This record gives sequence, structure tokens and C-alpha cells, in this order.
Amino acid sequence: MISPEDRGFYFADGVYEVIKYYKGKPFCFHEHISRLKSSLLGIKISFENTAKLHEVCDALIKANGLSEKFAGVYIQITRGVAPRTHRFPEGPIEPTIFARAFPMPANDSEMSNGVRIATHEDIRWQWCNIKSIALLPNTIIFEEAAAQGAFECMLIRNGFVTEATHSNIMAVKSSKVYTHPNSNLILPGITRMAVLRLCRMNNIQVVEEPVKASEIAHYDEWFICGTGSEIVPVIKIDNLPVGNAKPGPVTRMIQQEFFKITYEELAGERMVLDTGY
Amino acid sequence: MISPEDRGFYFADGVYEVIKYYKGKPFCFHEHISRLKSSLLGIKISFENTAKLHEVCDALIKANGLSEKFAGVYIQITRGVAPRTHRFPEGPIEPTIFARAFPMPANDSEMSNGVRIATHEDIRWQWCNIKSIALLPNTIIFEEAAAQGAFECMLIRNGFVTEATHSNIMAVKSSKVYTHPNSNLILPGITRMAVLRLCRMNNIQVVEEPVKASEIAHYDEWFICGTGSEIVPVIKIDNLPVGNAKPGPVTRMIQQEFFKITYEELAGERMVLDTGY
Repeated sequence: MISPEDRGFYFADGVYEVIKYYKGKPFCFHEHISRLKSSLLGIKISFENTAKLHEVCDALIKANGLSEKFAGVYIQITRGVAPRTHRFPEGPIEPTIFARAFPMPANDSEMSNGVRIATHEDIRWQWCNIKSIALLPNTIIFEEAAAQGAFECMLIRNGFVTEATHSNIMAVKSSKVYTHPNSNLILPGITRMAVLRLCRMNNIQVVEEPVKASEIAHYDEWFICGTGSEIVPVIKIDNLPVGNAKPGPVTRMIQQEFFKITYEELAGERMVLDTGY
Repeated sequence: MISPEDRGFYFADGVYEVIKYYKGKPFCFHEHISRLKSSLLGIKISFENTAKLHEVCDALIKANGLSEKFAGVYIQITRGVAPRTHRFPEGPIEPTIFARAFPMPANDSEMSNGVRIATHEDIRWQWCNIKSIALLPNTIIFEEAAAQGAFECMLIRNGFVTEATHSNIMAVKSSKVYTHPNSNLILPGITRMAVLRLCRMNNIQVVEEPVKASEIAHYDEWFICGTGSEIVPVIKIDNLPVGNAKPGPVTRMIQQEFFKITYEELAGERMVLDTGY
């Protein structure tokens, strides 16, 4: 249990990560922790002990009998417990660390058949690069979309596609992959970075530019990517079919490459990403 | 204590109110509860039992020995406890209700002498009319301003003044009061409504239009208002003096009228507001 005076409960004053474990092996653990550090820095929470998190996460996976499964570890760090005032607490306080492990099976059917997604205006704050727990807009938008049978919801800000409520999103045209550049308007997704790296390794050209919402239909393929979603083809956006409404060849190739570095090859070396994380 | 699986802790999936008690008498209790209902509706939390809150709040004031003081009651309602998923929980769950009473003395010196405030881009989400606990942007912006000695921080979105991090803001020019109209971009403040009502009762013209940030210096007076702040004159914005850097006559008159309906007259009838709340 936590205190109701935890600033995470009062103010959403915290950040989080979700790390996927493939049969006991974490995918891009270092990159997740780097992003966590960046989020902590972004909202000025002092927490030095990130080095210990690997041990804690591994222990949680084991203690929950998830070493042979696909699983996730959720880590949330808030500024800590203090009397309610918008100002940060005076003097150092102990951050609150909450972590848990849980089964995280793959979305086999969705990855195989593709999904329909909805669209919504991106009403979120403007520091979306910080993976904060202030997720109310994400949950409201996703709930509305999911209640209507959509798998995810694409967000559109000022006429441009940014990302989705809890994954990044990419488009394909003439075999080039398009996605919003890292900025304050999107989360620097770990799977996003892995995908871009895989594209470059496979000579697929990457264009990190925002896609105009008015041109969504001009793209041959769309897919979403994220720690939980992995790589899911989008075959319908609102009521508009994407291409021939079947997962496209570039998405398929990226899925295969992604599976190689997760399901198949994780026993070996972890992939080194060539990004900021 | 609350569960770390409370959606308030995971997702900032909740709303709140702060009600001021003047020596045992709440100011605009009904209006606060109406706004709470509106916030709950805005994020689709079902909580029917708002009628009981008056009793609970009164009891908290008494139990904490605050019946003869200036005090506040904080009420927070979250969607409740459920396994973490962006979707709302299936089936009805019990919302979490957290309330506490605390001393809330007036900012005598600030109300009397006026304050300096800072300015910052309004980076918040776009449903600011919902009084949600997703307050991370407000706390970060306020902390930065307060660390530099500012009493509050004015928010500017797309070149227009919206409100402040935890109060509304108004300007005065040629004895007319200007403030942002109620919309998705500001909180419909209870004190804001009371002030506008007082202006109309005292033949002060009210213009509910956003003030251009580029014209901040063209106004004779500025003041902030809110449940906690009450009416605080702003005498400096960033490093720019407002008028002659002393509280102005319209602000003073509004303060006096506000004191009449709170400090002096609350023993009598509560003021009836002519607004949506």
C-alpha cells in the first residue's frame, strides 16, 4: 500500500517504464533505464539507484514464475510522500518505487491479421517525451476507441500524426518508412528505435518527418509499435482501409526482423541501438 | 493508505476539489460539488453519492478542530483499484474517495501588498476545464516560478493568457475587467465566478475574452483569484511592473466585496452565483 499523500497520487508526479522479458531475458533493458533516467531528470526527481533496478526486475520475474514466459516488469517512481502543495517538497525526500511483474503474452492474432485503429485529436500536454504517469488523456482517448472495437488510437496534433495512446506509429510509402521525429510531442519509443535500426540494417529508407493527417490515405501501410504491442499491422484507420486491408510486405519484413532479435535471438547478445538511448 | 493499483496512482485517473471553510462555514459548497460532478462526468467516473460529501466535509472540519479557523477540505475521487490497463475496468468498481481537512490561513501580506508572478507557456493538456489530478505540468511550472520567488505563474497558450498554475487570472483596463472565457482551456474557477458576479453587482464591466500576451503591459491592473489565493493583486509580471507597481483600485474594490461575502457575511446566506455552477 502507498500513502494517499504520495505525490504520485496527488499530482501524477512520477514516471514509469514497462520492460518486456522474453523467457527471462529483458529486451533493451539498458535503453529502458536510460529513458527512465531521462524522464526523472525531466521532472527533477532525484533517484540515483537505477543500477539496482536490473537485479530487482530479474528477481520479480523469477519470484512470479515468469522466467519461461513472455512477461513484463512495470516500474513506477514518484517524487515521494509529502504534505500537498504544488511546490516540490523542501529538502530531500525518499522517492516511492513501485515495481511488479506480470504475464505479457504476444498479440498473436493482431500481429498476424492486423487491426483497426481509431483517430483522435492529440489533447495531451506538450512534454510527451517524458514518460510520466499523468496518463489520464491517454486512458480516456483509448477507452473511447477501444469501446468501439479499435485496437489503438492514432493521435493528431495540429494536422499531423504524432503517435498513438500507448504506442508509436509508422507509415510506409513506396517502401520508405515514415514516422514522427523524436521531439517533445512523442515518446521516444524503445521499440520505435529498434524498428528504425532494423530498417537501416535492412536498407529500408527511414524518413523521420510527421505525416499530414490529410494524407493518411496516401500511404501503403501503417503499423504501430511498442513494448506491449511489438509490431502490429494496421489494416483500417477509422473506416478507411489501409492499402488492400491486409498487412503489407514492409510491415511483415520488420515484424520478422523484430522477432529475430526478440523471440529467436535474445539468448545471444542484446541488440545495440544507435540512438540516444 | 491506498493501493498502488489505484488508477489515481497509475494513470492520474481522478478528479478533486478544494473547498474553503471560513470559521466552520464552507464558501460555495454547492458550486464546488457541481463542478466535481462535472469533472466526474468529464472522465466518466460513476459516483452518485455526492450528497453525502457535505456531511463528510463538515465532520472533517470539526474533527480536526478547525471550526473557528480558516480551513480547507480536499476531496479526491479516483476511478478505483484495478489491474493496470489503459482501458477502464470492466464492470462497476468502487471509486476511491480521499478527503482531508487542513488549516488554510489567508495570504494577508500578499493580498495587501501584491505579488510578482512569472510567465510560462501553457503546456498542459487541452481539457483544462476538468479538475483532474493530472497536475504534473502545473507542479513543474509552479516549482520553477516559485524557486525564483514568484507567487504564481501566468500561462500563455498560442499567444493568449489562459490562467495560472493553480488560480485564474484577470486584468483591468479603463475600469473594465478582462478574463479568459470559460472553455476547455481554463478551469471554471469558483472564485472566478464569484468575482465576475461581484463585478456585475457593482457595475464593473466584465469582458470575457482572452488577453493577448503581447498586450499584457497595456493593462492597468492584474490580479489572480482562487479558493486558496482568494484575490491577490499582481504588481509585477516577470520583471515588468504592473501600473505603478501597487495594487490598483479595481482590484481593491473586488477584494473588499469578496471579503464581505466570505469573512464578514458568511454567517448569513450563501451567495447565489448566476453561472453554470
